[in-house]
Amino acid sequence: MTEQKATNITRHEHNVSKEERAKLNGHKGAILWFTGLSACGKSTIANAVDHKLYLAGKHSVVLDGDNIRMGLNKNLGFSAEDRAENIRRIGEVAKLFSQNASLTLTAFISPYRADRDKVREIMGQGEFIEIHVDASVETCEQRDPKGLYKKARAGEIKNFTGISDPYEAPEKPELVLDSNRKGIEELAGEVISYLQNHGYFTA
Amino acid sequence: MTEQKATNITRHEHNVSKEERAKLNGHKGAILWFTGLSACGKSTIANAVDHKLYLAGKHSVVLDGDNIRMGLNKNLGFSAEDRAENIRRIGEVAKLFSQNASLTLTAFISPYRADRDKVREIMGQGEFIEIHVDASVETCEQRDPKGLYKKARAGEIKNFTGISDPYEAPEKPELVLDSNRKGIEELAGEVISYLQNHGYFTA
Repeated sequence: MTEQKATNITRHEHNVSKEERAKLNGHKGAILWFTGLSACGKSTIANAVDHKLYLAGKHSVVLDGDNIRMGLNKNLGFSAEDRAENIRRIGEVAKLFSQNASLTLTAFISPYRADRDKVREIMGQGEFIEIHVDASVETCEQRDPKGLYKKARAGEIKNFTGISDPYEAPEKPELVLDSNRKGIEELAGEVISYLQNHGYFTA
Repeated sequence: MTEQKATNITRHEHNVSKEERAKLNGHKGAILWFTGLSACGKSTIANAVDHKLYLAGKHSVVLDGDNIRMGLNKNLGFSAEDRAENIRRIGEVAKLFSQNASLTLTAFISPYRADRDKVREIMGQGEFIEIHVDASVETCEQRDPKGLYKKARAGEIKNFTGISDPYEAPEKPELVLDSNRKGIEELAGEVISYLQNHGYFTA
């Protein structure tokens, strides 16, 4: 499915380099890949981080399942093959933003380790920050803001991660956020601290 | 192919609005959609515009066929169906950049009017600037930097726009660049002037 089909193409060198754009922005680009169960807080934390970055004058973007699913990936469903293609496309788009020196926050369940690792592989050293938003099924099921766990338990939704489909937690994520015990603001602060402590802000 | 497959999703409101990001950047986001024959100068002009924007401290990005084909769209070929999906995905990605207040330059042959119009339809008023890089087949064939026209004439490349596949020129493009007679710098300047004269720069 992902073999190189097109021939007769050559890679263009862009006139403006990644490094030049990073200089303009005052920070490097990177993907901050939030992964975790439905309702674990991925999107909310990503948006809180995004807002803090915006207030600090940084350039960031949030890609999340709900928005991507209505646009780029609206022709994909939830089969294993479509889930893999979903994550592959998101990884490629996040790479484009990252190469453009944006701090690129992605908030997708992305339950399979192999799919996340494939995105890591297309990125350079330090450009893929895997963030496990760690909340138990019990915690998420208790929140259940969209009533999805209820529907999944009732069998109305098939292939539901954590109920009828597996979630493969990251083995060596760059960051783990304890969403069972901590609130959004505290967790968003931990992400900002990570970026500060690892040299992502250059100005 | 592009029907909405996923159910149980709702659109998230991002905390940072398009308008707030535009304020940070000092300009609105928009797609500058360059269209024209192979070797008409799309990519070169787009990169020249991008470089001028960078030097002026603006936030821009170039999406071009060669780079997109090796990443996001590497599982697409050159059939009519794949070409349509190619342009659809590029349009959605360009929309994401544009919504993030980037001046988003796309450089694709994009030969079919219907495909380009579909991108226009997902964008707001003034957010889709169609730029016809107008060079005749003769001009492009004379340049032929990659020897593609030669191969197409020899029948080694099928579905080659302008030779064995049609090119549908835009009927009401926002801008026409005369690439038969003018050079890269002059044409890039015309694009910058368009942005200036139409209020895209707010600071």
